[in-house]
Amino acid sequence: MDFTQKHILGIDHLSVAEIDLILNTAANFKEINNRDIKKVPTLRGKTIINLFFEASTRTRTSFEIAGKRLSADTINISASASSVVKGETLEDTAMNLEAMHPDIIVMRHSASGAPHYLAKRLPRSSIINAGDGTHEHPSQALLDMMTIREHKGRLDGLKVAIVGDITHSRVVRSNLIGLTRMGADVRVAGPGTMIPPGIERLGATVCRSLNEALEGADVVMMLRIQLERQGKSLLPTLREYSRFFGLNPSNLALAKPDALVMHPGPMNRGVEISTSVADGPQSVILDQVENGVAVRMALLYLVGGANNDESTIQSSQSKGVTA
Amino acid sequence: MDFTQKHILGIDHLSVAEIDLILNTAANFKEINNRDIKKVPTLRGKTIINLFFEASTRTRTSFEIAGKRLSADTINISASASSVVKGETLEDTAMNLEAMHPDIIVMRHSASGAPHYLAKRLPRSSIINAGDGTHEHPSQALLDMMTIREHKGRLDGLKVAIVGDITHSRVVRSNLIGLTRMGADVRVAGPGTMIPPGIERLGATVCRSLNEALEGADVVMMLRIQLERQGKSLLPTLREYSRFFGLNPSNLALAKPDALVMHPGPMNRGVEISTSVADGPQSVILDQVENGVAVRMALLYLVGGANNDESTIQSSQSKGVTA
Amino acid sequence: MDFTQKHILGIDHLSVAEIDLILNTAANFKEINNRDIKKVPTLRGKTIINLFFEASTRTRTSFEIAGKRLSADTINISASASSVVKGETLEDTAMNLEAMHPDIIVMRHSASGAPHYLAKRLPRSSIINAGDGTHEHPSQALLDMMTIREHKGRLDGLKVAIVGDITHSRVVRSNLIGLTRMGADVRVAGPGTMIPPGIERLGATVCRSLNEALEGADVVMMLRIQLERQGKSLLPTLREYSRFFGLNPSNLALAKPDALVMHPGPMNRGVEISTSVADGPQSVILDQVENGVAVRMALLYLVGGANNDESTIQSSQSKGVTA
Repeated sequence: MDFTQKHILGIDHLSVAEIDLILNTAANFKEINNRDIKKVPTLRGKTIINLFFEASTRTRTSFEIAGKRLSADTINISASASSVVKGETLEDTAMNLEAMHPDIIVMRHSASGAPHYLAKRLPRSSIINAGDGTHEHPSQALLDMMTIREHKGRLDGLKVAIVGDITHSRVVRSNLIGLTRMGADVRVAGPGTMIPPGIERLGATVCRSLNEALEGADVVMMLRIQLERQGKSLLPTLREYSRFFGLNPSNLALAKPDALVMHPGPMNRGVEISTSVADGPQSVILDQVENGVAVRMALLYLVGGANNDESTIQSSQSKGVTA
Repeated sequence: MDFTQKHILGIDHLSVAEIDLILNTAANFKEINNRDIKKVPTLRGKTIINLFFEASTRTRTSFEIAGKRLSADTINISASASSVVKGETLEDTAMNLEAMHPDIIVMRHSASGAPHYLAKRLPRSSIINAGDGTHEHPSQALLDMMTIREHKGRLDGLKVAIVGDITHSRVVRSNLIGLTRMGADVRVAGPGTMIPPGIERLGATVCRSLNEALEGADVVMMLRIQLERQGKSLLPTLREYSRFFGLNPSNLALAKPDALVMHPGPMNRGVEISTSVADGPQSVILDQVENGVAVRMALLYLVGGANNDESTIQSSQSKGVTA
Repeated sequence: MDFTQKHILGIDHLSVAEIDLILNTAANFKEINNRDIKKVPTLRGKTIINLFFEASTRTRTSFEIAGKRLSADTINISASASSVVKGETLEDTAMNLEAMHPDIIVMRHSASGAPHYLAKRLPRSSIINAGDGTHEHPSQALLDMMTIREHKGRLDGLKVAIVGDITHSRVVRSNLIGLTRMGADVRVAGPGTMIPPGIERLGATVCRSLNEALEGADVVMMLRIQLERQGKSLLPTLREYSRFFGLNPSNLALAKPDALVMHPGPMNRGVEISTSVADGPQSVILDQVENGVAVRMALLYLVGGANNDESTIQSSQSKGVTA
């Protein structure tokens, strides 16, 4: 199957077959990341711009490592250093970067829809959404799906509980769309102020308590409470949040014995997740991070190289490292 | 012709033949930037330090992409992260970097003359001035000249209007010197507080109004009003500035019908330039940005590789990408 | 001899034979830094993360250049951009980075012992301490030892005077341990508030005055007065500091005529060191910086490549640059 998407704007734009292709491609790249020589020439001579209007160590580092291991040239631009401070429009900033002939722009922006807006205006570059406002974070959902599939062998028919601030989380939105599309059964739980009305229309079952969500779950995905944001107004106290919506060994026991524990990071230990659960045998949190690099290599490869290049990923691998 | 300059400190130091060589070399590199594989091994094993004491997304990114496409190792240092905050002298900072054996230091500094000062003190490295105070910004003038020549086939005999803050602009100074040297006829216009006395000695004709400058012009170069600086003291109001010195379709009609519209960016749309002109058929603003990468590749190549290397740019090209 | 250390946490962990091996390896790499093509494929396909929780232009740039000249992929992460601001623990930040399969994490942190703490917890990555609190800065001591050995032919039996804030300096600690281990005789001098009780147990002789320390010295190592820190409380005035503990031509005359003058930088000219001494014939301050890149290449090579790779540094060199 050929991947024909030019951009990766959201899970919403991806078919089941495309998601499968991305996850399979990522599994191949994961093997490269475990080699002694972690580099293939696949995107040599391509230029990737990481354009981050919001700070993010983890996601930017993951994309940068992914690009470099594919031999692309990677350029980092962070908002504080950017012309935006000088009053330039987002479109002008992007058009100017496009004029430098990047192949891919990986973009994070606080405004929902910003990457979609640019994708319509930039004639050449592929855009990968690395998180837009409260909208989508497709590479996060893909790495989550990859991690679940790796451990459970499938996504179809699994019971996935997602717990926390459902309203403001792009991680939830992308996962909800992706997991239900792949046949999983998703339940959400969180404080009333953090459950958006109408979430059922995206395929979620809303649970009235954490325990109800955990009951019989195959996967438990805890969300980060963003202390710097929600802490101010949407929560009574952190202690109360932790008591009602924090995962710990005793409530985790309500889920299936082999349920996976996931978290997109960075974690607030002792708030939304207890340390013993975060570091326990059911936790696949670090697998998520590891798979993140592989998923991002797959995305960069599929939008940046697959169409112009007859070489398949297998032949890139057999070519091995540049001499 | 061999390029024998060690540094690129300003247009003032370049002869007509050297400017021609740079623009011809840049035209060759532009072709590489349009390839699927945008990389040549020309500066492999060379180290380029981008030392920016003033923030600049556009120029830094352009130089970084240029260096990477030539296969150089590029290192970014920004002022805020720099030892200067610890009270070290500029000369000591530079001497310390030089001791790490970079081949080229690309430098932006708020003090006019800073790169010239260092060029005299650093025994080995080539210095490229990426903008010094209100003095010179040679790579900007070269990309402007490249863009004009591309569209008009020549520089000699063209009428070029430059409009805005003539006093504080290094872009103007470098362009004035370069364009007059190449035989163009340069006129300037702007508020009285922004026209330096004696500018005629650099070869400019001072116009009393925007309309007078536009009349019959082949090229119209609008300058950015730096809201964060000039807005405070030198201008009555932005609305007034825009009314007297903003380019719009009706005053642009005074110029030749095929006049080019240029702007060094970032633009203040609706202030010094209207959106319909900025995005109109006469605008070559994005060509300027595209040519910026090519001009910077040419500069890096000419100071960093031409003398030590018998290979010509043509043979680099035929060698193609590193295997 | 094989280098069997996985991490470089401090000079304290290195034997005489290991220090010799590092310095000899660095001498080989120094030759590469003087070539026209300053690049070897030694660490191609390896990933190095420069994780700096304290700002440092010099050390970060030196490690970044070292990594790139060995053909490694280098990723910079600075504290301000990091998840630490979001309340993540240091261990979680590091475990997350480790999950991306870096080969080496070069780390600077304001907390003494931070790299040692992580070295025990990260199962795979090698950690190089680029300065931890007031504890150790091993690459600085190694480049100092390399510079002394280069000029004096040996370390054994030399009289080394170290002058300044002995209490708060990781540079002093690492040098004291390293130099005494290699057979040098180290004396320290500084204001009473800056001499830690019990420093004699590390092998130092405490002098009551600068003059006493300088008397007959082979090497004079001046420390930076950190104006932003010590200036506030530990010093009466800078002028007084300079009068009692500043190096100038007249007190330097007390040392041997061919005594080396060293400083880890950045210098406060006119405070701890006079300009005529800093730039004088006995100064090897820029040699220290130059050797810094070579020492860091040696460290990266020894922890990142020596064990997994039968190729020796000599064969890397003869292979030369990647085609």
